[in-house]
Amino acid sequence: MLIVRKIREMQSIAETVRKDKIIGFVPTMGFLHEGHLSLVRKSKEMTDVTVVSIFVNPIQFGPNEDFEMYPRDLERDRSLLEKEKVDVLFIPEKDEMYGEDYKTYVRVQEMEDYLCGKTRKGHFQGVATVVTKLFNIVKPHLAFFGQKDYQQLKIIEKLVRDLNMDVNIVACPTIREPDGLAMSSRNTYLSQEERKKAQHIYMALIKAEELFKKGERNAKKLVEEARNLLSSVEGLEIEYISVVDCETLEELEWINDSGVVAIACRIGKTRLIDNTILRRYEHDESHDEIKDSQGKGY
Amino acid sequence: MLIVRKIREMQSIAETVRKDKIIGFVPTMGFLHEGHLSLVRKSKEMTDVTVVSIFVNPIQFGPNEDFEMYPRDLERDRSLLEKEKVDVLFIPEKDEMYGEDYKTYVRVQEMEDYLCGKTRKGHFQGVATVVTKLFNIVKPHLAFFGQKDYQQLKIIEKLVRDLNMDVNIVACPTIREPDGLAMSSRNTYLSQEERKKAQHIYMALIKAEELFKKGERNAKKLVEEARNLLSSVEGLEIEYISVVDCETLEELEWINDSGVVAIACRIGKTRLIDNTILRRYEHDESHDEIKDSQGKGY
Repeated sequence: MLIVRKIREMQSIAETVRKDKIIGFVPTMGFLHEGHLSLVRKSKEMTDVTVVSIFVNPIQFGPNEDFEMYPRDLERDRSLLEKEKVDVLFIPEKDEMYGEDYKTYVRVQEMEDYLCGKTRKGHFQGVATVVTKLFNIVKPHLAFFGQKDYQQLKIIEKLVRDLNMDVNIVACPTIREPDGLAMSSRNTYLSQEERKKAQHIYMALIKAEELFKKGERNAKKLVEEARNLLSSVEGLEIEYISVVDCETLEELEWINDSGVVAIACRIGKTRLIDNTILRRYEHDESHDEIKDSQGKGY
Repeated sequence: MLIVRKIREMQSIAETVRKDKIIGFVPTMGFLHEGHLSLVRKSKEMTDVTVVSIFVNPIQFGPNEDFEMYPRDLERDRSLLEKEKVDVLFIPEKDEMYGEDYKTYVRVQEMEDYLCGKTRKGHFQGVATVVTKLFNIVKPHLAFFGQKDYQQLKIIEKLVRDLNMDVNIVACPTIREPDGLAMSSRNTYLSQEERKKAQHIYMALIKAEELFKKGERNAKKLVEEARNLLSSVEGLEIEYISVVDCETLEELEWINDSGVVAIACRIGKTRLIDNTILRRYEHDESHDEIKDSQGKGY
């Protein structure tokens, strides 16, 4: 596995490789788990050369967020990626990514304001900007993102379409712990007790799914049920439970064909998010896609 | 000359050409003049394949600006570009560039607020966004911009550096009419009488240059002299006369080694801009660059 730290070097390798090979890219903030590795495996399966980046992007963290304490373990990450036979590990330096007089930002209007955007001001601008930079450096044909960060995924898809980036975004299913908790580097913040409470987030999503399957189309009713379940968990603070349009992320009152139930909450100092996609039609093509992107198989 | 109207087609041609040829790109809004053609000739000289785009970018015009009346003459432009042996003319359609649910914008903070940014709110966001899109579509190695739109040039240079776009920006000298008026598609708006008044803009710049050469370093003094000259022109309304830093575009009070004198004014309904670079050291390398970028040779 080639380790690259300089932007120019990565760019020049990418330019050469792209001439006759398909480049797959998995951008990460490191502290890798099975969710990340599932993206890496997908890239290995679909492309010729897999590039993984590890970069804890300062501009997507708010002033009171966990940039400083975000978990890092480069040696562990490196050995995990070597086992997956990743071709290039790109670890850019903060000072080269954002020089002192850095000034340029990419925004996806409206979509950045919903859901997590309400409390994490500037977060998705930070995400859209770093992804634009990384795509310009790594020049991938395909880039892999997890459905767990649903709003991020949809913003990146929109960004790529709007700015005519020549990259295909591959959405991959959320990978979960055996009790259903969505994998996240931030799970490491949870105490044993908090960890037990965290499984209720997925239970709330399942509850909403079940109601939907029984025919409930009123978004308020689904939210109410999920809220009831989560409210009973002591020390779990709900930030939002919303049902939104799968593409625009606008809040839905009524679910016609599809919608996403998205949850954000805090357990102690840890902020956790999760989501599930609801679809009315069980047997069409889009459903198969969803089954996949829900990770139902495992 | 190949004419391409679809984004995907342009992108796919660019992807193939880029494998073994150097692509030069001249983005324009059409209604071409000698300024544009000088960029085309520079591209022909420096690259293997020259792509020119013609697109009157709606999002860089304010609601009370001249988007609708901006001069267009595609047949004339096409024949001029054919004479220059341009390889590809890219004419994207507005509806494909900006679909109904278009949401993504690129901003270069601070630099977009100075000079023309004060009155043309959103203009440079529109420029930065369309240039990002066009670069992603045309995939050039080199892109050519005129110094006449100095703020635009510097914002694009910054954008390219900040977002790590793999494009080299080539700044080209302002091309002038025999009486000094900087060439611009908007000059066509001027009546014969207005056209005569317009030459005073360059005269004001020359005045500031002369003072600087005599040793004046106080920016206010240069502005004052230029303002005196322009104030005497009836029907010419000064929007700004500023001396700014060559890179950051911040207003200067004192010119140490270099600065740019920039002028915007209105003559009747026509808004015109021009600028000149001042450098203290006459014989260093950067001066040669300036001599060139001032078009002094002609």
